Amino acid sequence: MAHAYLRDKEDLLNRLKKIEGQIRGIQRMIEEDRYCVDILTQIAASKQALNKVGIALLEAHTRGCVAAAIQHGRGDESIEELMKVIFRFLG
Amino acid sequence: MAHAYLRDKEDLLNRLKKIEGQIRGIQRMIEEDRYCVDILTQIAASKQALNKVGIALLEAHTRGCVAAAIQHGRGDESIEELMKVIFRFLG
Amino acid sequence: MAHAYLRDKEDLLNRLKKIEGQIRGIQRMIEEDRYCVDILTQIAASKQALNKVGIALLEAHTRGCVAAAIQHGRGDESIEELMKVIFRFLG
Amino acid sequence: MAHAYLRDKEDLLNRLKKIEGQIRGIQRMIEEDRYCVDILTQIAASKQALNKVGIALLEAHTRGCVAAAIQHGRGDESIEELMKVIFRFLG
Repeated sequence: MAHAYLRDKEDLLNRLKKIEGQIRGIQRMIEEDRYCVDILTQIAASKQALNKVGIALLEAHTRGCVAAAIQHGRGDESIEELMKVIFRFLG
Repeated sequence: MAHAYLRDKEDLLNRLKKIEGQIRGIQRMIEEDRYCVDILTQIAASKQALNKVGIALLEAHTRGCVAAAIQHGRGDESIEELMKVIFRFLG
Repeated sequence: MAHAYLRDKEDLLNRLKKIEGQIRGIQRMIEEDRYCVDILTQIAASKQALNKVGIALLEAHTRGCVAAAIQHGRGDESIEELMKVIFRFLG
Repeated sequence: MAHAYLRDKEDLLNRLKKIEGQIRGIQRMIEEDRYCVDILTQIAASKQALNKVGIALLEAHTRGCVAAAIQHGRGDESIEELMKVIFRFLG
Protein backbone atom coordinates (compact mmCIF):
# COMPACT_ATOMS: atom_id res chain seq x y z
CA MET A 1 0.00 0.00 0.00
CA ALA A 2 1.21 3.51 -0.76
CA HIS A 3 1.63 5.48 2.45
CA ALA A 4 -0.04 8.78 3.14
CA TYR A 5 3.20 10.74 3.35
CA LEU A 6 3.80 10.22 -0.36
CA ARG A 7 2.24 13.59 -1.11
CA ASP A 8 4.80 15.28 1.15
CA LYS A 9 7.68 13.06 0.11
CA GLU A 10 9.72 15.79 -1.61
CA ASP A 11 9.22 18.23 1.23
CA LEU A 12 10.27 15.64 3.84
CA LEU A 13 13.32 14.62 1.79
CA ASN A 14 14.39 18.25 1.38
CA ARG A 15 14.12 18.89 5.09
CA LEU A 16 16.12 15.76 5.88
CA LYS A 17 18.81 16.74 3.37
CA LYS A 18 19.03 20.09 5.16
CA ILE A 19 19.36 18.33 8.54
CA GLU A 20 22.06 16.06 7.07
CA GLY A 21 23.90 19.24 6.02
CA GLN A 22 23.50 20.68 9.54
CA ILE A 23 25.02 17.51 11.04
CA ARG A 24 27.96 17.77 8.62
CA GLY A 25 28.30 21.44 9.57
CA ILE A 26 28.50 20.46 13.25
CA GLN A 27 31.31 18.02 12.43
CA ARG A 28 33.16 20.81 10.63
CA MET A 29 32.72 23.13 13.63
CA ILE A 30 34.29 20.48 15.89
CA GLU A 31 37.16 19.91 13.45
CA GLU A 32 37.80 23.67 13.39
CA ASP A 33 37.74 23.87 17.22
CA ARG A 34 34.84 26.29 17.25
CA TYR A 35 33.32 27.57 20.51
CA CYS A 36 31.29 24.84 22.32
CA VAL A 37 28.26 27.03 22.90
CA ASP A 38 27.99 27.79 19.18
CA ILE A 39 28.17 24.08 18.41
CA LEU A 40 25.56 23.30 21.07
CA THR A 41 23.27 25.94 19.55
CA GLN A 42 23.54 24.14 16.20
CA ILE A 43 22.81 20.77 17.81
CA ALA A 44 19.69 22.23 19.47
CA ALA A 45 18.61 23.62 16.06
CA SER A 46 19.04 20.21 14.39
CA LYS A 47 17.01 18.59 17.15
CA GLN A 48 14.26 21.14 16.61
CA ALA A 49 14.34 20.49 12.84
CA LEU A 50 14.00 16.73 13.53
CA ASN A 51 10.99 17.49 15.76
CA LYS A 52 9.36 19.32 12.86
CA VAL A 53 9.99 16.47 10.40
CA GLY A 54 8.60 14.12 13.04
CA ILE A 55 5.41 16.17 13.43
CA ALA A 56 4.96 16.38 9.63
CA LEU A 57 5.29 12.59 9.35
CA LEU A 58 3.02 12.06 12.34
CA GLU A 59 0.39 14.25 10.71
CA ALA A 60 0.63 12.40 7.38
CA HIS A 61 0.42 9.08 9.22
CA THR A 62 -2.64 10.16 11.21
CA ARG A 63 -4.42 11.55 8.13
CA GLY A 64 -3.57 8.39 6.17
CA CYS A 65 -3.09 5.11 8.01
CA VAL A 66 -4.75 5.99 11.33
CA ALA A 67 -7.82 7.61 9.68
CA ALA A 68 -8.20 4.61 7.35
CA ALA A 69 -7.92 2.20 10.30
CA ILE A 70 -10.59 4.16 12.21
CA GLN A 71 -12.92 4.11 9.21
CA HIS A 72 -12.49 0.36 8.93
CA GLY A 73 -13.18 -0.22 12.60
CA ARG A 74 -9.55 -1.08 13.33
CA GLY A 75 -8.71 2.21 15.04
CA ASP A 76 -7.78 0.79 18.44
CA GLU A 77 -4.40 -0.77 17.75
CA SER A 78 -3.51 1.96 15.26
CA ILE A 79 -4.07 4.64 17.93
CA GLU A 80 -2.17 2.62 20.54
CA GLU A 81 0.80 2.36 18.19
CA LEU A 82 0.56 6.11 17.47
CA MET A 83 0.72 6.96 21.18
CA LYS A 84 3.76 4.74 21.73
CA VAL A 85 5.70 6.52 19.01
CA ILE A 86 4.65 9.97 20.30
CA PHE A 87 5.83 8.99 23.78
CA ARG A 88 9.20 7.96 22.34
CA PHE A 89 9.37 11.41 20.75
CA LEU A 90 8.94 13.22 24.05
CA GLY A 91 12.18 11.67 25.35
CA MET B 1 42.63 28.89 22.77
CA ALA B 2 42.15 25.15 22.34
CA HIS B 3 38.75 24.09 23.58
CA ALA B 4 38.18 21.45 26.19
CA TYR B 5 36.36 19.07 23.89
CA LEU B 6 39.55 18.44 21.93
CA ARG B 7 40.24 15.33 23.97
CA ASP B 8 36.89 13.87 22.90
CA LYS B 9 37.07 15.17 19.33
CA GLU B 10 37.34 11.77 17.66
CA ASP B 11 34.52 10.32 19.75
CA LEU B 12 32.22 13.28 18.99
CA LEU B 13 33.03 13.13 15.28
CA ASN B 14 32.33 9.39 15.15
CA ARG B 15 28.98 9.84 16.85
CA LEU B 16 28.03 12.65 14.47
CA LYS B 17 29.05 10.56 11.46
CA LYS B 18 26.75 7.83 12.78
CA ILE B 19 23.90 10.34 13.17
CA GLU B 20 24.55 11.62 9.64
CA GLY B 21 24.20 8.00 8.47
CA GLN B 22 20.92 7.66 10.41
CA ILE B 23 19.54 10.79 8.71
CA ARG B 24 20.50 9.35 5.32
CA GLY B 25 18.84 6.07 6.32
CA ILE B 26 15.63 7.95 7.15
CA GLN B 27 15.68 9.54 3.67
CA ARG B 28 16.05 6.06 2.15
CA MET B 29 13.11 4.78 4.20
CA ILE B 30 10.94 7.61 2.86
CA GLU B 31 12.09 6.98 -0.72
CA GLU B 32 11.21 3.28 -0.30
CA ASP B 33 7.76 4.15 1.14
CA ARG B 34 8.46 2.38 4.41
CA TYR B 35 5.90 2.33 7.21
CA CYS B 36 5.57 5.75 8.93
CA VAL B 37 5.84 4.39 12.45
CA ASP B 38 9.16 2.70 11.63
CA ILE B 39 10.46 5.99 10.20
CA LEU B 40 9.26 7.91 13.25
CA THR B 41 11.05 5.41 15.50
CA GLN B 42 14.28 6.15 13.61
CA ILE B 43 13.74 9.92 13.92
CA ALA B 44 13.22 9.54 17.69
CA ALA B 45 16.46 7.51 17.85
CA SER B 46 18.42 10.21 15.98
CA LYS B 47 17.02 12.85 18.32
CA GLN B 48 18.14 10.79 21.29
CA ALA B 49 21.62 10.39 19.75
CA LEU B 50 21.83 14.18 19.28
CA ASN B 51 20.87 14.61 22.94
CA LYS B 52 23.79 12.38 23.92
CA VAL B 53 26.27 14.31 21.74
CA GLY B 54 24.87 17.50 23.26
CA ILE B 55 25.42 16.23 26.81
CA ALA B 56 28.98 15.10 25.97
CA LEU B 57 29.79 18.54 24.56
CA LEU B 58 28.09 20.26 27.49
CA GLU B 59 30.22 18.22 29.87
CA ALA B 60 33.44 19.04 28.01
CA HIS B 61 32.46 22.71 27.94
CA THR B 62 31.72 22.77 31.68
CA ARG B 63 34.95 20.95 32.60
CA GLY B 64 36.91 23.26 30.30
CA CYS B 65 35.67 26.78 29.62
CA VAL B 66 33.19 27.12 32.49
CA ALA B 67 35.59 25.71 35.10
CA ALA B 68 38.37 28.01 33.84
CA ALA B 69 36.04 31.02 33.97
CA ILE B 70 35.03 30.16 37.55
CA GLN B 71 38.68 29.82 38.60
CA HIS B 72 39.44 33.23 37.10
CA GLY B 73 36.50 34.88 38.83
CA ARG B 74 34.56 35.23 35.59
CA GLY B 75 32.09 32.44 36.30
CA ASP B 76 28.91 34.51 36.24
CA GLU B 77 28.47 35.19 32.53
CA SER B 78 29.87 31.78 31.63
CA ILE B 79 27.21 30.06 33.76
CA GLU B 80 24.46 32.32 32.42
CA GLU B 81 25.43 31.39 28.86
CA LEU B 82 25.51 27.71 29.85
CA MET B 83 21.95 27.88 31.21
CA LYS B 84 20.65 29.55 28.06
CA VAL B 85 22.02 26.80 25.88
CA ILE B 86 20.66 24.07 28.19
CA PHE B 87 17.22 25.70 28.06
CA ARG B 88 17.35 25.69 24.25
CA PHE B 89 18.12 21.97 24.49
CA LEU B 90 14.99 21.22 26.50
CA GLY B 91 12.84 22.42 23.58
CA MET C 1 -21.08 16.50 24.57
CA ALA C 2 -19.39 14.11 26.97
CA HIS C 3 -15.71 13.77 26.15
CA ALA C 4 -13.95 10.51 25.52
CA TYR C 5 -11.65 10.77 28.55
CA LEU C 6 -14.63 10.36 30.85
CA ARG C 7 -13.93 6.63 31.11
CA ASP C 8 -10.44 7.36 32.43
CA LYS C 9 -11.49 10.32 34.54
CA GLU C 10 -10.73 8.72 37.91
CA ASP C 11 -7.37 7.45 36.76
CA LEU C 12 -6.38 10.86 35.36
CA LEU C 13 -7.53 12.65 38.53
CA ASN C 14 -5.56 10.24 40.71
CA ARG C 15 -2.41 10.76 38.71
CA LEU C 16 -2.81 14.55 38.85
CA LYS C 17 -3.39 14.42 42.61
CA LYS C 18 -0.13 12.47 42.87
CA ILE C 19 1.69 15.09 40.75
CA GLU C 20 0.20 17.87 42.93
CA GLY C 21 1.68 16.04 45.92
CA GLN C 22 5.06 15.80 44.18
CA ILE C 23 5.02 19.57 43.55
CA ARG C 24 4.24 20.18 47.22
CA GLY C 25 7.06 17.78 48.13
CA ILE C 26 9.47 19.82 45.99
CA GLN C 27 8.44 22.99 47.86
CA ARG C 28 9.13 21.21 51.16
CA MET C 29 12.56 20.13 49.91
CA ILE C 30 13.41 23.75 49.08
CA GLU C 31 12.15 24.96 52.46
CA GLU C 32 14.32 22.34 54.17
CA ASP C 33 17.39 23.36 52.08
CA ARG C 34 17.77 19.92 50.59
CA TYR C 35 20.50 19.14 48.07
CA CYS C 36 19.78 20.75 44.64
CA VAL C 37 20.46 17.60 42.64
CA ASP C 38 17.87 15.67 44.70
CA ILE C 39 15.33 18.45 44.08
CA LEU C 40 16.14 18.49 40.36
CA THR C 41 15.62 14.73 40.23
CA GLN C 42 12.13 15.22 41.71
CA ILE C 43 11.33 17.96 39.19
CA ALA C 44 12.41 15.68 36.32
CA ALA C 45 10.14 12.94 37.76
CA SER C 46 7.14 15.31 37.93
CA LYS C 47 7.77 16.36 34.34
CA GLN C 48 7.83 12.72 33.29
CA ALA C 49 4.57 12.09 35.18
CA LEU C 50 2.98 15.06 33.36
CA ASN C 51 4.14 13.56 30.04
CA LYS C 52 2.34 10.34 30.93
CA VAL C 53 -0.90 12.14 31.86
CA GLY C 54 -0.56 14.07 28.59
CA ILE C 55 -0.19 10.87 26.55
CA ALA C 56 -3.19 9.28 28.31
CA LEU C 57 -5.33 12.33 27.53
CA LEU C 58 -4.01 12.48 23.98
CA GLU C 59 -4.96 8.84 23.51
CA ALA C 60 -8.48 9.37 24.90
CA HIS C 61 -8.89 12.44 22.70
CA THR C 62 -7.75 10.58 19.57
CA ARG C 63 -9.99 7.56 20.28
CA GLY C 64 -12.92 9.87 21.01
CA CYS C 65 -13.10 13.29 19.36
CA VAL C 66 -10.56 12.75 16.55
CA ALA C 67 -11.97 9.32 15.56
CA ALA C 68 -15.54 10.76 15.57
CA ALA C 69 -14.41 13.71 13.43
CA ILE C 70 -12.75 11.35 10.94
CA GLN C 71 -15.87 9.18 10.73
CA HIS C 72 -17.98 12.28 10.05
CA GLY C 73 -15.65 13.53 7.31
CA ARG C 74 -14.33 16.35 9.49
CA GLY C 75 -10.98 14.77 10.25
CA ASP C 76 -8.76 17.45 8.71
CA GLU C 77 -9.06 20.27 11.24
CA SER C 78 -9.24 17.82 14.13
CA ILE C 79 -5.92 16.26 13.10
CA GLU C 80 -4.34 19.68 12.52
CA GLU C 81 -5.36 20.74 16.03
CA LEU C 82 -3.99 17.45 17.42
CA MET C 83 -0.58 18.03 15.80
CA LYS C 84 -0.35 21.57 17.18
CA VAL C 85 -0.89 20.35 20.72
CA ILE C 86 1.61 17.48 20.29
CA PHE C 87 4.20 19.98 19.03
CA ARG C 88 3.63 22.15 22.11
CA PHE C 89 4.25 19.03 24.18
CA LEU C 90 7.67 18.40 22.65
CA GLY C 91 8.90 21.76 24.04
CA MET D 1 26.03 23.91 54.50
CA ALA D 2 23.50 26.40 53.18
CA HIS D 3 22.78 25.75 49.52
CA ALA D 4 23.22 28.36 46.84
CA TYR D 5 19.54 28.49 45.90
CA LEU D 6 18.73 30.06 49.25
CA ARG D 7 18.86 33.52 47.69
CA ASP D 8 16.17 32.54 45.21
CA LYS D 9 14.17 30.50 47.69
CA GLU D 10 11.12 32.77 47.72
CA ASP D 11 11.05 33.06 43.95
CA LEU D 12 11.31 29.27 43.51
CA LEU D 13 8.60 28.64 46.11
CA ASN D 14 6.27 31.14 44.44
CA ARG D 15 6.74 29.54 41.06
CA LEU D 16 6.10 26.08 42.49
CA LYS D 17 2.95 27.31 44.26
CA LYS D 18 1.77 28.62 40.89
CA ILE D 19 2.50 25.25 39.25
CA GLU D 20 0.64 23.50 42.08
CA GLY D 21 -2.32 25.76 41.29
CA GLN D 22 -2.06 24.90 37.59
CA ILE D 23 -2.16 21.17 38.41
CA ARG D 24 -5.26 21.73 40.55
CA GLY D 25 -6.78 23.74 37.68
CA ILE D 26 -6.17 20.80 35.33
CA GLN D 27 -8.00 18.50 37.75
CA ARG D 28 -10.94 20.92 37.77
CA MET D 29 -10.99 21.02 33.97
CA ILE D 30 -11.22 17.21 33.89
CA GLU D 31 -13.97 17.19 36.52
CA GLU D 32 -15.91 19.75 34.45
CA ASP D 33 -15.45 17.67 31.26
CA ARG D 34 -13.61 20.46 29.46
CA TYR D 35 -12.29 20.01 25.93
CA CYS D 36 -9.22 17.69 25.83
CA VAL D 37 -7.11 20.02 23.71
CA ASP D 38 -7.57 22.87 26.22
CA ILE D 39 -6.53 20.53 29.03
CA LEU D 40 -3.51 19.34 27.04
CA THR D 41 -2.49 22.97 26.45
CA GLN D 42 -2.53 23.52 30.21
CA ILE D 43 -0.45 20.38 30.81
CA ALA D 44 2.12 21.58 28.24
CA ALA D 45 2.22 24.97 30.05
CA SER D 46 2.83 23.31 33.43
CA LYS D 47 5.61 21.23 31.91
CA GLN D 48 7.21 24.38 30.53
CA ALA D 49 6.91 26.08 33.95
CA LEU D 50 8.64 23.06 35.56
CA ASN D 51 11.42 23.37 32.96
CA LYS D 52 11.94 26.98 34.02
CA VAL D 53 12.07 26.13 37.73
CA GLY D 54 14.51 23.36 36.81
CA ILE D 55 16.78 25.75 34.93
CA ALA D 56 16.68 28.29 37.80
CA LEU D 57 17.67 25.59 40.28
CA LEU D 58 20.32 24.24 37.91
CA GLU D 59 21.79 27.73 37.63
CA ALA D 60 21.82 28.24 41.41
CA HIS D 61 23.43 24.82 41.86
CA THR D 62 26.13 25.54 39.25
CA ARG D 63 26.91 28.99 40.70
CA GLY D 64 26.98 27.53 44.21
CA CYS D 65 27.94 23.89 44.73
CA VAL D 66 29.57 23.20 41.34
CA ALA D 67 31.63 26.41 41.35
CA ALA D 68 32.78 25.72 44.93
CA ALA D 69 33.73 22.15 43.98
CA ILE D 70 35.75 23.41 40.99
CA GLN D 71 37.56 25.97 43.15
CA HIS D 72 38.46 23.24 45.64
CA GLY D 73 39.75 20.90 42.93
CA ARG D 74 36.78 18.57 43.30
CA GLY D 75 35.03 19.66 40.09
CA ASP D 76 35.07 16.30 38.30
CA GLU D 77 32.39 14.38 40.18
CA SER D 78 30.32 17.50 40.68
CA ILE D 79 30.20 18.10 36.91
CA GLU D 80 29.48 14.43 36.21
CA GLU D 81 26.52 14.56 38.62
CA LEU D 82 25.33 17.79 36.97
CA MET D 83 25.33 16.19 33.50
CA LYS D 84 23.37 13.17 34.74
CA VAL D 85 20.61 15.38 36.12
CA ILE D 86 20.51 17.52 32.94
CA PHE D 87 20.18 14.35 30.86
CA ARG D 88 17.24 13.23 33.01
CA PHE D 89 15.67 16.62 32.32
CA LEU D 90 15.82 16.17 28.56
CA GLY D 91 13.48 13.17 28.81
